Amino acid sequence: MDARLFLEDLYVGQTFISGTFHLDEQQVIDFATIYDPQVFHTDPEKATDSFFKGHAASGWQTAAVTMHLIVTSIPIDCGIIGIGGDLTWLRPVRPGDTLKAESKVTNIQISKSKPDRGVVSWLVETKNQHDEVVQNLTTKILVFRKKP
Amino acid sequence: MDARLFLEDLYVGQTFISGTFHLDEQQVIDFATIYDPQVFHTDPEKATDSFFKGHAASGWQTAAVTMHLIVTSIPIDCGIIGIGGDLTWLRPVRPGDTLKAESKVTNIQISKSKPDRGVVSWLVETKNQHDEVVQNLTTKILVFRKKP
Repeated sequence: MDARLFLEDLYVGQTFISGTFHLDEQQVIDFATIYDPQVFHTDPEKATDSFFKGHAASGWQTAAVTMHLIVTSIPIDCGIIGIGGDLTWLRPVRPGDTLKAESKVTNIQISKSKPDRGVVSWLVETKNQHDEVVQNLTTKILVFRKKP
Repeated sequence: MDARLFLEDLYVGQTFISGTFHLDEQQVIDFATIYDPQVFHTDPEKATDSFFKGHAASGWQTAAVTMHLIVTSIPIDCGIIGIGGDLTWLRPVRPGDTLKAESKVTNIQISKSKPDRGVVSWLVETKNQHDEVVQNLTTKILVFRKKP
């Protein structure tokens, strides 16, 4: 993480593997209580009768954990400044799961109006400890060139 | 919020206005410390020199707050079960901002293989206290029909 990356250091196909993030039951409940107050996220017992057939993390918590994994594994010099993202949740994340993220550069677009920067597109797969993909994220991040 | 909604209660163009969610400085720091540890989100002082020219909430916190606003304003009977979403962040959310969400049904697709359910598409605009849109979200939610 010492080497800070600029736009000219990135290339299509470049891949970054993150560390891991362990999500315990209390973290799932704490997040859901504030941001996604639904019984299948907040109440381990009542969740057994729900669509998810058990306690599941909010998809938005999976997205937030993925951001932690991106921030700590892709050392862009100016930080990770996202313009937006497109998420698909493929299977539930359960309390006790350990997540990791694999981020691949899919496109690099130099800005025509502001030549000091570009927009880098990524595909980020978030996987659980069984190597199952729980979320796909495509996202665009602003990256600057080295200052001359 | 007493009337629980089923698939047949929803129609294209139907709009739900949420309550509000006030985001204070400590909440911005707490979220970022866990999920988006970058100085422009975690450190109000150092953030002044950053791309955001001041302390800004993580976009993923804006998304999470939006989920709270959706869950508490759209009384779908089975809860809000999202398949995914496409986010665009249009301007920074600052500590002290008060957010609200306006959710509009844009499409309803009955499942061919499982006629007891459908997928409802939404456009959700998240606005600050100045009525400026800070985030657009298009999302698809699973909704069940009334049981016969």
